[in-house]
Amino acid sequence: MVHYLPTEPEILILGRTRKKNPLPLFWTASGLEFRTDGSELWFELESDYESMEEWIRIEVDGFCLQRLIVPKGRSRLCAFRGFPKGTRRTVRLLKEVQPMLDERRYLLVHGLECDGKLYPPLPKKCRIEFVGDSLSAGVGLAGAPSLVDAGAAVYGLDGNYALLTAEYFQADFRILAKCGWGAYCSCDNDLVHIMPKYYEQVCGVLTGEHNRELGAFEENDFSGWQPDLVVINLGSNDGFAVDRPAWTDPETGFSQRMVSCPYGGLEEQSALRFEAAVKDFLKKLRRLNPNACLLWAYGMCEHRMSPYLEAAVRDYRKESGDEKADFLLLPATNPLWVGSENHPGKKEHELAAKVLIERVKEYEI
Amino acid sequence: MVHYLPTEPEILILGRTRKKNPLPLFWTASGLEFRTDGSELWFELESDYESMEEWIRIEVDGFCLQRLIVPKGRSRLCAFRGFPKGTRRTVRLLKEVQPMLDERRYLLVHGLECDGKLYPPLPKKCRIEFVGDSLSAGVGLAGAPSLVDAGAAVYGLDGNYALLTAEYFQADFRILAKCGWGAYCSCDNDLVHIMPKYYEQVCGVLTGEHNRELGAFEENDFSGWQPDLVVINLGSNDGFAVDRPAWTDPETGFSQRMVSCPYGGLEEQSALRFEAAVKDFLKKLRRLNPNACLLWAYGMCEHRMSPYLEAAVRDYRKESGDEKADFLLLPATNPLWVGSENHPGKKEHELAAKVLIERVKEYEI
Amino acid sequence: MVHYLPTEPEILILGRTRKKNPLPLFWTASGLEFRTDGSELWFELESDYESMEEWIRIEVDGFCLQRLIVPKGRSRLCAFRGFPKGTRRTVRLLKEVQPMLDERRYLLVHGLECDGKLYPPLPKKCRIEFVGDSLSAGVGLAGAPSLVDAGAAVYGLDGNYALLTAEYFQADFRILAKCGWGAYCSCDNDLVHIMPKYYEQVCGVLTGEHNRELGAFEENDFSGWQPDLVVINLGSNDGFAVDRPAWTDPETGFSQRMVSCPYGGLEEQSALRFEAAVKDFLKKLRRLNPNACLLWAYGMCEHRMSPYLEAAVRDYRKESGDEKADFLLLPATNPLWVGSENHPGKKEHELAAKVLIERVKEYEI
Amino acid sequence: MVHYLPTEPEILILGRTRKKNPLPLFWTASGLEFRTDGSELWFELESDYESMEEWIRIEVDGFCLQRLIVPKGRSRLCAFRGFPKGTRRTVRLLKEVQPMLDERRYLLVHGLECDGKLYPPLPKKCRIEFVGDSLSAGVGLAGAPSLVDAGAAVYGLDGNYALLTAEYFQADFRILAKCGWGAYCSCDNDLVHIMPKYYEQVCGVLTGEHNRELGAFEENDFSGWQPDLVVINLGSNDGFAVDRPAWTDPETGFSQRMVSCPYGGLEEQSALRFEAAVKDFLKKLRRLNPNACLLWAYGMCEHRMSPYLEAAVRDYRKESGDEKADFLLLPATNPLWVGSENHPGKKEHELAAKVLIERVKEYEI
Repeated sequence: MVHYLPTEPEILILGRTRKKNPLPLFWTASGLEFRTDGSELWFELESDYESMEEWIRIEVDGFCLQRLIVPKGRSRLCAFRGFPKGTRRTVRLLKEVQPMLDERRYLLVHGLECDGKLYPPLPKKCRIEFVGDSLSAGVGLAGAPSLVDAGAAVYGLDGNYALLTAEYFQADFRILAKCGWGAYCSCDNDLVHIMPKYYEQVCGVLTGEHNRELGAFEENDFSGWQPDLVVINLGSNDGFAVDRPAWTDPETGFSQRMVSCPYGGLEEQSALRFEAAVKDFLKKLRRLNPNACLLWAYGMCEHRMSPYLEAAVRDYRKESGDEKADFLLLPATNPLWVGSENHPGKKEHELAAKVLIERVKEYEI
Repeated sequence: MVHYLPTEPEILILGRTRKKNPLPLFWTASGLEFRTDGSELWFELESDYESMEEWIRIEVDGFCLQRLIVPKGRSRLCAFRGFPKGTRRTVRLLKEVQPMLDERRYLLVHGLECDGKLYPPLPKKCRIEFVGDSLSAGVGLAGAPSLVDAGAAVYGLDGNYALLTAEYFQADFRILAKCGWGAYCSCDNDLVHIMPKYYEQVCGVLTGEHNRELGAFEENDFSGWQPDLVVINLGSNDGFAVDRPAWTDPETGFSQRMVSCPYGGLEEQSALRFEAAVKDFLKKLRRLNPNACLLWAYGMCEHRMSPYLEAAVRDYRKESGDEKADFLLLPATNPLWVGSENHPGKKEHELAAKVLIERVKEYEI
Repeated sequence: MVHYLPTEPEILILGRTRKKNPLPLFWTASGLEFRTDGSELWFELESDYESMEEWIRIEVDGFCLQRLIVPKGRSRLCAFRGFPKGTRRTVRLLKEVQPMLDERRYLLVHGLECDGKLYPPLPKKCRIEFVGDSLSAGVGLAGAPSLVDAGAAVYGLDGNYALLTAEYFQADFRILAKCGWGAYCSCDNDLVHIMPKYYEQVCGVLTGEHNRELGAFEENDFSGWQPDLVVINLGSNDGFAVDRPAWTDPETGFSQRMVSCPYGGLEEQSALRFEAAVKDFLKKLRRLNPNACLLWAYGMCEHRMSPYLEAAVRDYRKESGDEKADFLLLPATNPLWVGSENHPGKKEHELAAKVLIERVKEYEI
Repeated sequence: MVHYLPTEPEILILGRTRKKNPLPLFWTASGLEFRTDGSELWFELESDYESMEEWIRIEVDGFCLQRLIVPKGRSRLCAFRGFPKGTRRTVRLLKEVQPMLDERRYLLVHGLECDGKLYPPLPKKCRIEFVGDSLSAGVGLAGAPSLVDAGAAVYGLDGNYALLTAEYFQADFRILAKCGWGAYCSCDNDLVHIMPKYYEQVCGVLTGEHNRELGAFEENDFSGWQPDLVVINLGSNDGFAVDRPAWTDPETGFSQRMVSCPYGGLEEQSALRFEAAVKDFLKKLRRLNPNACLLWAYGMCEHRMSPYLEAAVRDYRKESGDEKADFLLLPATNPLWVGSENHPGKKEHELAAKVLIERVKEYEI
C-alpha cells in the first residue's frame, strides 16, 4: 500500500480552497478525483462538529458506492477493496453537505492509501460554477418526504441538477450554495445571508478561528480557475421573503422587508432593490470571470420572481453591453415531486437539468 | 342493420346542445357515447365548412381507432366492422376541434347504423366542466412541432389534460374552450374574446344564421346538467396580452391594454381590472352552478399571472364566503415538451393532469 | 390544384410492387413519401373488400395526423388543408394492415392533388427489409386490450418496432409480414403459410385474379431494391404450433406437427426440421440479397424457440462461411404490456426496437 | 441516550437466526426494523473478515440514508442525528451482501443507542421468503457496469426485486440467496452449491467454527416464522452450467454436466435430473411450509430453462395435487439494462417486480 497526499499531481481537487495539505472541504461537492489501478483504496479523513455532522459520498466509475456520515476525529475509511488489480477506475470523493454555522465543524482529507498507481482523471471539457441556495445545495434530495427539519442528512448530491449538468458536459464544476440565502436578501429578509457578499472569498460564509486557519476567508484564486459558465440559481429566497416578517439590522436599526402588492406581484421598491442587487452581482461576476457565460437560472420552486429577474438581466445586458449574460426559467416543481424538507426531489432536478443542458448547449462552451 | 337516432335513451350526449336530432356538435369533445354488442357500426354525419374543416375521433373501449377529417356534405363513416358479435363495447365519437369563426362550418350527427343493440355507457361517477383557452382546446396535441399556423389539424384530444382528468374520475365532461381567449381580455387585448361573456349560452362564441338555427345561441340548460366541478383554465392569454399592442373598441373608441411595469410584473390598473374580471366570473359560475367546486387551474404555459389569479381567488373567497372556490398552479411547460403550434405537448398535459387529479381527489366529488 | 401521379420522380414508393400507376399497396407499411410546399393535399384512392377493410395512416413531418378506414370505391381523401403555403413538409401515406385472404380486397393510389410543388423526401441513409409475422405486421398495436378477434382494426403502425428502427436509421424500409405464419410451419402446423415460400414474389401470399393483374404474384425486382439489412422476425408461430393439433396435407395426406418433449423443449425431429428450414431461408435470403446483413431477430412474445434458432444461425454461419448472418434475442413481452389481440403492445415494441437498434448500430450499415 | 438490545420486543428481527443477542446477520436483507421518536440513533456493530468485507444500508422512513462498508472490529455507527425529537420514524438496518466463503467473516448487531423510545414497526401484512441466486442476492445492483469481479461491493438492495415486492405487499421478508447456485447443480455443474440442500438450516451455506457458534448451522425455526408465499428464483445457474466444463465429485469420482442437444435445447437426461430436483425441492418446501403459496419465478437473465421448469412445476402439481404451486416467467433482461458484474440492473429488477406483484396479487395472500 502506498500513501498519497492530496497534492499529488494526478489528483484533481474539486471545489474552492487555497490550502491543499491537508485538504479542507468547504462547499457542497468539494472533494477530489483521480483514477487508480489499485485493488484497494482507503481515505484518511479528519472531521469534527458540534451540531452538524459531515457526510460524504464515494463514487467509482460514476456510481455512488458509499454515502455515509464521517466519524469524528481522524479516521481511515475504506473506499473499496477486492477489486481486480490493473483496471483503471475513476474515483471521486465528494462532500454531500453545505458549509454550516457550526464553528467546530470541518472536514479534512489527509491523503489516501492504495495498492496501485494514481492517474489523472479523464480530461474535463470545461468548467462550470454554480452559485445558488438550497436547490443547488441539494436540500431535499436525501431522505423521505417525511423528513423535515432534519439537519445535515437531507443534503444530497444524488440527482442534483448541478451534478447532472456537469456530468453531461464532462465539466470540472463547483457549487457555492447556502440554504435560505438570496441575491438581495435571505428568506428572512436580512441583507447578510446573501451569496454576492461572499463570492470573492474561498468560503466566506463560514465563521470562526479554525475556518480562518483553513483558509476559508482568503480571497479565491480566480486566476487559477476561470469558469466557462457561471450558473446563478438565486432569487427563490428573495421571493419567499415576502411571506416572512421584516428584518432589522441589529447595528443600524435599519429595517427591511420584501413586500407584495395586495393585488399580487412585487411592490415597486422591493422590485427595484432586488433588480439592483441582481445587476450588481452580474457586474461582480463579470469582473471576476471576464470570459464566462453568465446564466441566471431560476424557477425550480416556483416562478414568483421570474418577471423581475428577467427584467434585471435584460437591463443589465442593455446597460453593460454584455452579451454573454442570459436568463433561463427552470421548470417549477409540483406537489408530486416533493423530496425531503418540502424541497424539490429528483424528478424536478432531472427535468431542470435537461432544460438547463439544452440551453447551455447553445453556448458551445 | 338497425338505424338509431342520437335521441335513443341509451346514448349519452356529450357537450352542450339543446337540439338533439340531428345532433349538432359545437365544442371540443362534444359527441356521443354508448355501448353496443354489434359487429359493425356506421355513423351518419353531415358537415360543411368554408375555411376550417371538422375533425373527429372514434374510440372503442377507450382506444382511439380513427381520427380523420369529416368529409363535406352528408357521409356515412364506418366506425368498425368485423368485430365479434355479442361483446359489449364502449363507443365514443368526439369532435376534435373547437368552434371556429367560419359561419358555413357545422357538424351534425344524424344517427348510426349497427347490427347489434345499444346499451347505456358505463355509469359516470361525476360531471366536470372545463372552461379554458387553447390549452383546454388541445392546441398542440396534434401535429409535429414543425406544424405552425396550421388551422384545424393541430387540435387534438389525444393526451388532453381534460380528457385524462375526466377519465380518471370516470366523469361525464365538457370542454368550453377557445384558443386565444381570456378571462378579462384576449391575447390581443380585446374585451370581446373572453369566455365569461358567453358562458350562459350553448355556444355563443359562434356567429351566423345557421348556428342560430342549430341552437348555438340559446341559453344553456343549467338545470339539466350540473357539474360537480368546474375547472377554469383561463388567464394565460390575459398574460400574453402584455406583449401585444393595445386594442381599440371600434364602436366606442375605448382603448385598452394589459401593461407591465418596467421592472417586471403587472402594472396596478391592469392587475385590478384582471382581478375584477376573475371575481366576476367566479360569481357567475357560482350562480349558475350552485353546488359545484370551482377550481381555477392555471399555469401550463408559464406563471406570469399566478400572483394576480391567486389574489383574485383568495379575495373572492373572503368577500363571498364561498369555500368551494380554489386555485391551483399547474406545472409550466418547458422547451423540451413543445408540441405543434408552439403549444405544450403531451408530456405537459400528462403532468398537468396528474397534478390536477391530485388536487381534485381532495374534494371527494 | 395540380394533379400528380404516383410515378412522379419526386415520390418515393414504399413497399414491394412492380406496377406504379395506379399504385397497388400490398404489404403493411406500403405507401408513398414525398415533400410538398402546398397548403392543401388530397389523395385519390380506390379500394374494395369483402370481409377485411383497408386502413391507412397519413403522416405529416412524422406525426400521424389521420388513421382511418378507406371507403369502398374511388375516393378523394383530404390529407390536410389550411397549412401555410411555402413550407416544405414530409408527407407519408402508409397502409396499416397486412395482405389478407379476401380476394376482392385491394387498395390503389391513383394520385394526389396539391396546390404546391413536390420535392423528393429527405435522403434515406439505408434500406431495411423486415420479414415477419403478426409482430412485424403490428397486430396488437391498435385497439384496447379488450379487442380480440377484431379483424383489420387491430393492425397498426403506431409504435411498430420496424417503423421505430427504420426511423432511427433514416431507412427506406419494407415489411413483409403475415399474422400466424412461420419459418418452417405456421401456428397451425401447416407447411403452406410460411414466409420463405413467397419471398421471391411481390406479394405471393395473396390469391385471386385481380391480385394477379395488380402484379402481386410477379417476381420481386431484387436488383431494383437491395436491402442493407434484412431483419427476419420469424419462429414465434413455429413455436406456438406445439400447442396446436397436427396438420394434414389435403393433397398428399402427409401429416405433421411440431412436438415437444414431455419434460420440456422441442423433440429432436421437430427441432431438426425447423433448423433446416431456417438455414434454407438464410441461404435464399443470401442468394437474393448478396451484400445485406441478415439478422434473425426473435423473441418478442416468448423465447421457446431461441435455442433452436440460435443453433440454426450458428450452424448456417459455420457451414456457409457467411459472416454477415446474426442472431438477436429480442426482449419477451410480459402481461403488463399486452395490447389488443393478446399481442405485445407499444412498450414491448419500443423496447424491442431499442435492443434491435443497439445491435444494428454495430453493423455500420 | 438509552441503550437497547436487539432483543427488545419493539424490534423486528429480519432474516433467519436463532441467536439474537448479539444478533448475527447471515443472509442478504437480514437486519432489524423498528420505529423511534428519538433525534439521534447509533448502532453498535461488530464485524470481521479476511477477504470479503461486510456492507450495510440504513434506511429511515424507507429512504436509504447510508450505505457503507462496516469497519472491522467493534464500531459505533451513527444512523442519524439532529432529527426533530418526537416524530416517529421507521428505521431499518439491512445487510447488503450475501453469506460468503470467508470463515473469518461475520456481522453482529450488539444493540443501539437512542435518545428516544422504541416502537414496533408498522404492522406487516404478510410474510414472503425468497430463495434464489445472484439475482435475489442483488448482484449487479451496486456499481457501474464497468465493475466486474469486484467482490462484495457489487451486491445491493437498492431496487432489488425482492425488496420492491415485499414493500408493495408490506411484507416481512427474507432472502436466502447465493450467487452461482442452482436447484439441481451450480453454474459449475457441481451438486454441492445448490439451495435445496441447505434450506432447513439457518444459514448452512456457511462454514467454520465461528459460524457454528453463531448458530448458522442450526435448524431453522419453521414454526416461528411461516411464510405466506415462497418465491423460488432458481434455475438460471442450472442453465448456465451447459456452457461450463463437467464437475467431478472429489470423493466419489462421479462426474456430471448439464448437456444441451447439438440442435438446441437440453439433452434428455439433463432435463430429467433437473426436473427431479425441482420437484424434490417443491416437496421439501411444501413439507416445511404447509400453507404457503409456492411460486417458482424464473427468467430475469434469459429463458433457457423455462420449458423444463414449467414442465417440472406442472408435473409436481399433477402428482402431488398441490394447487398452491405455480410457475411464473419473469421478463428477461436485455443488453441495455446491464448493471455491474454483467448482471441485470435496476430496470430489469423493477420490471420483474411489477410482473411478480401482478401475479402475487391473484393469490390474495
